[in-house]
Amino acid sequence: MNAPQSTPQSTAAAVPHDIRVGVIGVGRMGADHVERISRRIKGARVSVVSDYLRERAETVAQAAPGARVVDTPEEVIAADDVDAVLIASPGQFHREQVLACIAAGKPVLCEKPLAMNPADAHDVVRAEHESGRASVSLGFMRRFDAGYGELKDALEAGELGTPLLLNCKHRNADVLPGFTNVHMVHDSAVHEIDAISFFLEETVVSVQTLTGRSTENAPEGLSDPMLLLLRTASGTLVTDELYVSTRSGYEVRTELVGSKATATIGQDTGLVTTQQAGGCWGGAVPADFRPRFAAAYDAEVQAWIAAVADGSLVAPRSATAWDGYVAAAVCEAAEQSLTVDGAVEVTMLERPGPEGARDEH
Amino acid sequence: MNAPQSTPQSTAAAVPHDIRVGVIGVGRMGADHVERISRRIKGARVSVVSDYLRERAETVAQAAPGARVVDTPEEVIAADDVDAVLIASPGQFHREQVLACIAAGKPVLCEKPLAMNPADAHDVVRAEHESGRASVSLGFMRRFDAGYGELKDALEAGELGTPLLLNCKHRNADVLPGFTNVHMVHDSAVHEIDAISFFLEETVVSVQTLTGRSTENAPEGLSDPMLLLLRTASGTLVTDELYVSTRSGYEVRTELVGSKATATIGQDTGLVTTQQAGGCWGGAVPADFRPRFAAAYDAEVQAWIAAVADGSLVAPRSATAWDGYVAAAVCEAAEQSLTVDGAVEVTMLERPGPEGARDEH
Amino acid sequence: MNAPQSTPQSTAAAVPHDIRVGVIGVGRMGADHVERISRRIKGARVSVVSDYLRERAETVAQAAPGARVVDTPEEVIAADDVDAVLIASPGQFHREQVLACIAAGKPVLCEKPLAMNPADAHDVVRAEHESGRASVSLGFMRRFDAGYGELKDALEAGELGTPLLLNCKHRNADVLPGFTNVHMVHDSAVHEIDAISFFLEETVVSVQTLTGRSTENAPEGLSDPMLLLLRTASGTLVTDELYVSTRSGYEVRTELVGSKATATIGQDTGLVTTQQAGGCWGGAVPADFRPRFAAAYDAEVQAWIAAVADGSLVAPRSATAWDGYVAAAVCEAAEQSLTVDGAVEVTMLERPGPEGARDEH
Amino acid sequence: MNAPQSTPQSTAAAVPHDIRVGVIGVGRMGADHVERISRRIKGARVSVVSDYLRERAETVAQAAPGARVVDTPEEVIAADDVDAVLIASPGQFHREQVLACIAAGKPVLCEKPLAMNPADAHDVVRAEHESGRASVSLGFMRRFDAGYGELKDALEAGELGTPLLLNCKHRNADVLPGFTNVHMVHDSAVHEIDAISFFLEETVVSVQTLTGRSTENAPEGLSDPMLLLLRTASGTLVTDELYVSTRSGYEVRTELVGSKATATIGQDTGLVTTQQAGGCWGGAVPADFRPRFAAAYDAEVQAWIAAVADGSLVAPRSATAWDGYVAAAVCEAAEQSLTVDGAVEVTMLERPGPEGARDEH
Repeated sequence: MNAPQSTPQSTAAAVPHDIRVGVIGVGRMGADHVERISRRIKGARVSVVSDYLRERAETVAQAAPGARVVDTPEEVIAADDVDAVLIASPGQFHREQVLACIAAGKPVLCEKPLAMNPADAHDVVRAEHESGRASVSLGFMRRFDAGYGELKDALEAGELGTPLLLNCKHRNADVLPGFTNVHMVHDSAVHEIDAISFFLEETVVSVQTLTGRSTENAPEGLSDPMLLLLRTASGTLVTDELYVSTRSGYEVRTELVGSKATATIGQDTGLVTTQQAGGCWGGAVPADFRPRFAAAYDAEVQAWIAAVADGSLVAPRSATAWDGYVAAAVCEAAEQSLTVDGAVEVTMLERPGPEGARDEH
Repeated sequence: MNAPQSTPQSTAAAVPHDIRVGVIGVGRMGADHVERISRRIKGARVSVVSDYLRERAETVAQAAPGARVVDTPEEVIAADDVDAVLIASPGQFHREQVLACIAAGKPVLCEKPLAMNPADAHDVVRAEHESGRASVSLGFMRRFDAGYGELKDALEAGELGTPLLLNCKHRNADVLPGFTNVHMVHDSAVHEIDAISFFLEETVVSVQTLTGRSTENAPEGLSDPMLLLLRTASGTLVTDELYVSTRSGYEVRTELVGSKATATIGQDTGLVTTQQAGGCWGGAVPADFRPRFAAAYDAEVQAWIAAVADGSLVAPRSATAWDGYVAAAVCEAAEQSLTVDGAVEVTMLERPGPEGARDEH
Repeated sequence: MNAPQSTPQSTAAAVPHDIRVGVIGVGRMGADHVERISRRIKGARVSVVSDYLRERAETVAQAAPGARVVDTPEEVIAADDVDAVLIASPGQFHREQVLACIAAGKPVLCEKPLAMNPADAHDVVRAEHESGRASVSLGFMRRFDAGYGELKDALEAGELGTPLLLNCKHRNADVLPGFTNVHMVHDSAVHEIDAISFFLEETVVSVQTLTGRSTENAPEGLSDPMLLLLRTASGTLVTDELYVSTRSGYEVRTELVGSKATATIGQDTGLVTTQQAGGCWGGAVPADFRPRFAAAYDAEVQAWIAAVADGSLVAPRSATAWDGYVAAAVCEAAEQSLTVDGAVEVTMLERPGPEGARDEH
Repeated sequence: MNAPQSTPQSTAAAVPHDIRVGVIGVGRMGADHVERISRRIKGARVSVVSDYLRERAETVAQAAPGARVVDTPEEVIAADDVDAVLIASPGQFHREQVLACIAAGKPVLCEKPLAMNPADAHDVVRAEHESGRASVSLGFMRRFDAGYGELKDALEAGELGTPLLLNCKHRNADVLPGFTNVHMVHDSAVHEIDAISFFLEETVVSVQTLTGRSTENAPEGLSDPMLLLLRTASGTLVTDELYVSTRSGYEVRTELVGSKATATIGQDTGLVTTQQAGGCWGGAVPADFRPRFAAAYDAEVQAWIAAVADGSLVAPRSATAWDGYVAAAVCEAAEQSLTVDGAVEVTMLERPGPEGARDEH
């Protein structure tokens, strides 16, 4: 990031270059990120784009002034005009691509999951540790939601006392056909599993997945709703209700029960109307996660760019490679629990450090 | 209930006698009932009172115009001027006293529990069945709470679709020293266990009691909060959070997740203020169950009196002897679950009927 | 109220007779009161009924065990078996009937209005004063609503500081054709005008009635919504929004802005659902005033009966004859204000007392 | 805005220069804008800064990489490296500075007020009109608040029907000593006066300012709370409650009563806690306008930059010079109304156009 030539009468620091971001994978999520960086993220621009569909990459690049298209993820990572990499490719490629970023010494923001299984995720953790510095951020965007932030602030300020219970609800209007119990764990519950890391900063020691009576609206083969019950090392219990065929809309609510106070987020109201039709009062439920978490995505990417610009590389409160490993380990146990009675113990490899990679949130 | 002498010009039915209620046990709850019947319940008066402390019975009877005091529960039940009996004595006497009421052919409203164990409770169910008619009401007053009624109405109207999950929260400001995990199940959770009978009208097949990290405010030996996880015959899952040392106040919230809609009760607001102190908005949490359920107690007793007066003896939606047996059986399993891993199966004796005693709600 | 013969072993006060209530006028409101007293009001029964439609009186009396029908209001008031009179006849007869009750020495609960104009209302105030004791209650039932009570309690406890503003909203789903601006003042706004007496305990010194753009749903000739702006002697400002063609339902909300805190009532929620249809969350708006204020009517009549029984004749917090006069005087000024620009001063005759009739709330 | 040299393999549009913003006046508000543009506004940077305190300008410029400091507003406006001007100087200089921007052909975002009186404000409207194109935006940031946007959307979609009433509440924890009734109109009420332009898109024809009982917390000489009553050309009534010594915090609530539905904004909840202290539930009230409207300021400036970049110069829904004139005219009448009884008519000069300057929102 070299300084531009400044005018002689300047009294302030030189204008820095924008961080040049290479984006790997521009399906819906990646395209959103390209649009976000190009329109709303201060201090960054998309410089290089790749996708396994070259045509799609070219279309998406139109929205990013100055961006060029290359053929492979490797080219993105290696490009001289790429300061940092955003990975939004399918999950099975994440491990390899993140490892390549670490090897190239480029900070990376990778959409979840970090890898397809705990062992692969731990490879990334180790490689990052061996690189001598933290440079991997993982896209658990809820950590940048205003409500999540307020709850975290209240916890850190001690206003809630000791956390005793964490109750989570995660509801979607619907899912695509083919969405199974395994997807429920890995795609839906994974967000609350990371919320445990974020809010409680503790290890999950066991997880129990409960299925019961299903809605008639669930796709074939999905137990919907599903209930996860997790226990942390300190004994804090976590319930996670997952219900993805509500037909109503997207709702995420979190309640932390502490020894001093309980606190709830996710009940904000927006416009409240009293309607003639049906003689009712109330508000709208967002159709999907995008209106609910749009600001969180923006805040996440902005925080990442700021961290890259100031050299810290990983933003405060961001999910790290280690958080990605933890999520993978807990998801694996939750998936096992689908086929056994009772709780499944979560086994975790050791965390490298504290020397080397960033070792706390 | 004989007709009084009516004036010759009367065009309407004769004025009926008030139902004369005998009250057994006038500790806090029984004294409340005496005061309730004497001041607010139409069509009833307290005629006879007993307590193991004669002096207390005499003091309480002052508040009930025309009431006399007798020495024993047996005298109350046998008295000619007692049309119906309300039992608020300690739980270990309930079985015997309810059986005596059945034998005497007198309708009875018994505070929970019906008996101290499932076998004893089933004795009452059987005796009532053999008596040829339903005459036992059990004091699960929440069934008469306006919110509970609205949720039940919505379910019966099909507005919520198939019930999939029932999430209950039960919080108290504090409990007396000596309150243990067993009390938590039998005194606190029992209300939500009856809520399952009320809302879902289904048998509980298994129950799992989870304890975790406790608040520093819990009495010695109590795991607080505690989590119950129940499963019904149809597979509907029920979570019950019990937390009785909140220091904040009394909160009871219930959410039913149905296949058509979800519905929540217990979040009513009362007076909402914006205060200078602390710059906050909000409302008060009631100190204990009395303000929260005062109207429910009144409605319960009024419905019972109406049922006695019209000869149906047990009010619509009231908990019955069978509901008392179910609660005892589920509580027993929940208590066992405190000392074992995983879920405990609930075993139930058969329900007598359908010939004979009232067989549905 | 003579004592009945009591059993020799009685340790308590004798059973008192029920208060025998005579009801004048049994249209919708009067019939409701007959049903209320017969089914829910402890310590009272309807003994005599009259209506200008004899047949209607006979039908309504069926619901009141022991009640007889007479031909005229005079007969009701004079009857030996009438301890207290409830007037629910058309407003133009109220003055005469209340005066007759005062003359007969019988306590009376009169539905609003007390009289058709301030002068007539003041006649009643004077007659009651000359009778030497307060015996007239006026049916402003909101004073017995739980929310109104909580707000009054908070004011009396000093929690809100000095009242600075009172903001009232009064909304109906619809009104009958023929409902005019004059009805809006006398039938709708009158409730908030009494709320000023109740909450602020101050005289209104001026009132301004504003009409503006009307909804297309308003009946011919009605300015709907309408806005009243009132000022009390101390300078407290009151806004009253009246909107009676909302098509949504019945809503009454009151906000008091005090120098220490602001407080709002009327936003209670009942059952909150998240629906599939429209993807919205919310609750129902009651269709009319009956569900909203049913408990307040019960509480009002119960408090009146208790006051009659204990000899105080007018219940604490009940509206009095003087409150009826105040409402008439303010309504008259508000009506005048419909045809002039700016505020109209309210002129009031002196209040008799303090010797004699009850002189404060 | 010339294109930079692009790399040969680029498939997309060239990277555009950032819009270079000159900022006049860097007191609290101007410094906030410099920080905002430098850290969060995509596509812009602060290039030149001036303030009457040169030292302050130099300090603030530190936060804006590449910004230089000049001595006078004229130099800012004339600078070659200034594409657009943001004015945050004291209000008495706005007219002159905005006129200079128009003369220089540079788009301008001016903090309110546009000018110190209606005549001066109209000068700006006329000058902009004569320039042949709209280029003046006025800093009524609430138009960019999410809630304001939702309400506007609902109105435009016809969901609320015809607007009948607009009820506004505007509360502050406190104001500085020396804040008078005139400030209340020009600094506080002005926001709701613009809300009328925004939501109703109508002319205010009369305004009445009411003062009553004041809180003991009000500064000497301030009538607090104050009530404004406005009427638009179509007869829609608007109430505006202003109360700036609540000691609680900052609250802005707006309710639009339409012929099809009513809608309320400003009741969002954030974190809801149930506390031990006082046994209450609720949330925090923000201390001042900054947390409440921080996102609106960002959105406002981002929308302005986008409009400058795409050549439209004034953002959709932004307040225009004409809106600034309207606010000045209504404020003047409201101020007059402080000293007279009843409503004061608002007189307005004609709006230039429709040929020429942008003539609708």
